[in-house]
Amino acid sequence: MADLRSDTVTRPTPGMREAMAKAAVGDDVFGDDPTVNALEAHVAALFGHEAALFAPSGTMANQIALQLVVPPGGELLAGADAHVVTYEVGAAAMLGGISTRTWQPDSADLDVEVIAGMIRPAGYPSVPTAAIAVEQTHNLGGGGVVPLATIQHLRAVADKHGIALHCDGARIWHAHIADGVPLAEYGALFDTLSVCLSKGLGAPVGSLIIGSREKITRARVLRKRLGGGMRQVGILAAAGRYALDNQLQRLTEDHERARIIAEALSPFGVVDPERVRTNLVPLDLSKHNLDAPTLAARAAERGVLIAAMLPRTARLVTHLDLTDEAMDQTIEVISDLLA
Amino acid sequence: MADLRSDTVTRPTPGMREAMAKAAVGDDVFGDDPTVNALEAHVAALFGHEAALFAPSGTMANQIALQLVVPPGGELLAGADAHVVTYEVGAAAMLGGISTRTWQPDSADLDVEVIAGMIRPAGYPSVPTAAIAVEQTHNLGGGGVVPLATIQHLRAVADKHGIALHCDGARIWHAHIADGVPLAEYGALFDTLSVCLSKGLGAPVGSLIIGSREKITRARVLRKRLGGGMRQVGILAAAGRYALDNQLQRLTEDHERARIIAEALSPFGVVDPERVRTNLVPLDLSKHNLDAPTLAARAAERGVLIAAMLPRTARLVTHLDLTDEAMDQTIEVISDLLA
Amino acid sequence: MADLRSDTVTRPTPGMREAMAKAAVGDDVFGDDPTVNALEAHVAALFGHEAALFAPSGTMANQIALQLVVPPGGELLAGADAHVVTYEVGAAAMLGGISTRTWQPDSADLDVEVIAGMIRPAGYPSVPTAAIAVEQTHNLGGGGVVPLATIQHLRAVADKHGIALHCDGARIWHAHIADGVPLAEYGALFDTLSVCLSKGLGAPVGSLIIGSREKITRARVLRKRLGGGMRQVGILAAAGRYALDNQLQRLTEDHERARIIAEALSPFGVVDPERVRTNLVPLDLSKHNLDAPTLAARAAERGVLIAAMLPRTARLVTHLDLTDEAMDQTIEVISDLLA
Amino acid sequence: MADLRSDTVTRPTPGMREAMAKAAVGDDVFGDDPTVNALEAHVAALFGHEAALFAPSGTMANQIALQLVVPPGGELLAGADAHVVTYEVGAAAMLGGISTRTWQPDSADLDVEVIAGMIRPAGYPSVPTAAIAVEQTHNLGGGGVVPLATIQHLRAVADKHGIALHCDGARIWHAHIADGVPLAEYGALFDTLSVCLSKGLGAPVGSLIIGSREKITRARVLRKRLGGGMRQVGILAAAGRYALDNQLQRLTEDHERARIIAEALSPFGVVDPERVRTNLVPLDLSKHNLDAPTLAARAAERGVLIAAMLPRTARLVTHLDLTDEAMDQTIEVISDLLA
Repeated sequence: MADLRSDTVTRPTPGMREAMAKAAVGDDVFGDDPTVNALEAHVAALFGHEAALFAPSGTMANQIALQLVVPPGGELLAGADAHVVTYEVGAAAMLGGISTRTWQPDSADLDVEVIAGMIRPAGYPSVPTAAIAVEQTHNLGGGGVVPLATIQHLRAVADKHGIALHCDGARIWHAHIADGVPLAEYGALFDTLSVCLSKGLGAPVGSLIIGSREKITRARVLRKRLGGGMRQVGILAAAGRYALDNQLQRLTEDHERARIIAEALSPFGVVDPERVRTNLVPLDLSKHNLDAPTLAARAAERGVLIAAMLPRTARLVTHLDLTDEAMDQTIEVISDLLA
Repeated sequence: MADLRSDTVTRPTPGMREAMAKAAVGDDVFGDDPTVNALEAHVAALFGHEAALFAPSGTMANQIALQLVVPPGGELLAGADAHVVTYEVGAAAMLGGISTRTWQPDSADLDVEVIAGMIRPAGYPSVPTAAIAVEQTHNLGGGGVVPLATIQHLRAVADKHGIALHCDGARIWHAHIADGVPLAEYGALFDTLSVCLSKGLGAPVGSLIIGSREKITRARVLRKRLGGGMRQVGILAAAGRYALDNQLQRLTEDHERARIIAEALSPFGVVDPERVRTNLVPLDLSKHNLDAPTLAARAAERGVLIAAMLPRTARLVTHLDLTDEAMDQTIEVISDLLA
Repeated sequence: MADLRSDTVTRPTPGMREAMAKAAVGDDVFGDDPTVNALEAHVAALFGHEAALFAPSGTMANQIALQLVVPPGGELLAGADAHVVTYEVGAAAMLGGISTRTWQPDSADLDVEVIAGMIRPAGYPSVPTAAIAVEQTHNLGGGGVVPLATIQHLRAVADKHGIALHCDGARIWHAHIADGVPLAEYGALFDTLSVCLSKGLGAPVGSLIIGSREKITRARVLRKRLGGGMRQVGILAAAGRYALDNQLQRLTEDHERARIIAEALSPFGVVDPERVRTNLVPLDLSKHNLDAPTLAARAAERGVLIAAMLPRTARLVTHLDLTDEAMDQTIEVISDLLA
Repeated sequence: MADLRSDTVTRPTPGMREAMAKAAVGDDVFGDDPTVNALEAHVAALFGHEAALFAPSGTMANQIALQLVVPPGGELLAGADAHVVTYEVGAAAMLGGISTRTWQPDSADLDVEVIAGMIRPAGYPSVPTAAIAVEQTHNLGGGGVVPLATIQHLRAVADKHGIALHCDGARIWHAHIADGVPLAEYGALFDTLSVCLSKGLGAPVGSLIIGSREKITRARVLRKRLGGGMRQVGILAAAGRYALDNQLQRLTEDHERARIIAEALSPFGVVDPERVRTNLVPLDLSKHNLDAPTLAARAAERGVLIAAMLPRTARLVTHLDLTDEAMDQTIEVISDLLA
């Protein structure tokens, strides 16, 4: 099968398996795992922050970060299509008591003036805004990259109001590769970031929360409550480190392949190749006679797996396990079905 | 002082006080208060629903209703300026575990297509939408009235997706008076409504949740948990019934007076009288050199109380305790300050 | 009907109704109601605290107080039969995120050593204990009075561990009357207290949270979130003040009458009159062939209302609306049924 | 260092590392990981249940299970020392809105009559009891084993009241080995169980929730919200399966060694060897002049790590990484310090 449902489907490479098999480990709940400790320090340094913490998933990393910057009963501004609002099973409200007010339409093309206008300062009868979340790259926004200048502008707005910025950076690696912005430059603009090792980077499991030492100390307690305190985490951390050291630069290939797919499908009016900048290829089926679940089901019958994200939005994702044959097959099958 | 901060400042009239003094009462936690039972039945009937329940505040009435139509962990769509999202101290998320995705800009001029586009159906990885909340009249929207046709359209959309509609009808009485729409016609379009007795109607305390018998039975338990189970509620219910019977039609006067104020202040470019349809006069100070807290503070020094809702939004509210002298004083003082 | 289900069933007396009818009022959400402001100051002073806040029910008063002394995720120690744990619909956990660890058996005869042994200090992997709740008088404990010396001992234990003490003092008035302990002496031993005006005191609605000025400032926000912010509260506050000024000392009569009932029923082995010290008469039916719901149902058929608290626990409560005839009828009917 | 803080400190054995290195994997969020699917089916079968679900920690497994059997706002009965109440950072209340009423004293010697007496049936003003949690073996209870007959008795009580039983079976393997009770016999008595692979069994990471197919389907959603949805979980599952196949029977050795330590330390009056039945050796320092943190600190200076569980309770745990030399050193150092 050609599996383009997500870049999370990648399997560990031989080198990564070897790194896992040899990893030095300890009990991370006691802080004794040398491999995860080293990974946390390394990732914190990459983003120019003091500390980082390993978490079993991007959802947990995001939710811990949100709880660090928004108190129970407080308010977060985010996009109406943000992963933290819409793909984490209502966790912000249910687990953290966090209210969300959202902007829409939502994509990587943030309108900072709109967001600024939504901020509620303290001293009024409304709930004051505690933080704003940005998604880089933007998942439902088709892998779009929020421009550095936009984030800088947003940071200035946040500073003016004394509120925090969180980056859901599950795929920030792709923004770094696509725009050539150093990770530390992104890091400097956010109070907290979450980054994921198990998407494009290809590790089997793991995300990290990045922030100040004080925040990460609190994050350990929040992680324990959520059930994210694991033991010999070094096994997983070794894979993550291997991915960072060996599988980061190759994201360029995924971006090129996504562009190739987009160009091949653009004649069907479902995607604009100019907007495909990273490894996601969103298909807008709003004017097509096939809806996303039907397209996905028919493609699956012909050996191509894609994701139905919304009734009229499908998504193809390129990644390191995608072979040249799978690329050809994908373009052929999806073109056929859209024709 | 001329007090135009809110229509909640009204004091009970002599007739209302007499009604309270004579009210037959019992223990409402046991269901034994005849006056509140009669009021609940009366209000339910006004809106064409099976049942209603008295609550100590509009916030509690709204939060109970939201918990009736959205399960913990579920999603509500609402306006970014909605009272249920922004003026209830984060209660939906904190107390009910309810996620909110919001549309903006937000006013009584709802764009049903935008809202329809935000609905997330079940069967996708996102949290499915459980309900939509509408505010009638719209408080931060300057007392605007959502047109009946808009609500009918939204009802059709909700029905198509099998989701609930809640009406925050704290000031639905004003919409009824302004547009001449029968209350039961509004009632027929919503699964739950909250209505308030202590705003324009002039009762000292109380709101009601309106819905099916099954919902109101569950609402009693939710009310108890929130601490809204009171004892000899008939004292308050008698005032509410008096207000409904004697002080509903006079809202026309409040609407006329709001229009008079708006016309007097329109030369200063802060309000469009055409959009002042009920008893709220919103002042948009975004292009003025006074911000709302400063305007409110200076007006207070000269005996006129108005509300600073947001940094650049002030609000004047007409109500039954406003004398002709207070009207004149208000127009004079605010005009002076804006000049 | 002779209604002994609860002392909450009392109706306002003529003097109280007159006080309500004449009450000066304002909008309490803005802090403008003179009657409730005076009542809050008066009750705070009675207990020797800085401030107090009116709430629509004892449940809300307790829950606000718990949220003041236990952070979300924190731990409260309480009796397994405590009202705050068992009769408030799970509010502490659901609304405040508060964990409860409970002692049992539970009554007014607290074993301070047991409680002290349950305290979890900070610095261990367990959740540290933030507060302990005491119920005075103890409802499921049959109206028992926690001795002053016990509370003093518990205060010393709490101080040693740096944790807070809350008093659910819904019926603390009865302890004051029964034991002659000044209210301020109780007040000095607790960080927060809740007291109720609508039980034995006979007011229609209302409880208060008592504590430091800082706590009560925070309590106003918590009350708003829970939906307890009401408007012309002076109507209710006037009744409460009247009750405090005129109906407090008469609780002695209720205590005497409860003792009379207990003595009349003691031959049936369901109650020990020596333990009936206030206005509650608990009937222990664990060895009787009638269970509590059956006893209550049969008594109701004969015009006597009592409460089935648990399958084998019924409760009779004396109060100011109980006539001499109702007393006689109660004793006759219940004796008959138990015979 | 001789590390007896916990059996969670064990590192993967060479055979286990090889199993991990070779594991077939897929994306478990999509249900595509063959190794975790097989492990889940295997563990479900071991306990005679329909289904099981992998979770990153015992805390998450427990919390998911509690949310399966207790609705938000519902009540759980548990021991006052239970892990689910006291070592999971308040998760039941904070994340699940679950109220806990607890029995104490708490140990493996459950008093079923006491527990039965605490159950609150529906139909009364109190919150009805939804479930009871049992811990097997009992951690703070010194690794004690709840007798099968006790659980059978409790099951009968639960059935009579229509409430659920959850087993926190993090160390149920030890009960199985110590008492010879088949795992399926335990399984048959509980609605849900959690079991842990990373304690005595020696796997690096992972627990499972066990129950009916319907419950496990719901558990997947709850796991996603808590952030426990991981990707190529087969790496971890392979270790867990290896542990079950190869490292279960050897728990006997850990039990024997714990007994040896207990016998060596019993002359100091801190432990009764007769009560040491599994791999935990609790030291009761309540009558000793050393408190637990001091004992742990001094032992650490001499190369022996033990856990301070409470101010006067220390704990030693035997496990597969403990060498004979470490055993000798432990007995020598702790004896010296207690002498």
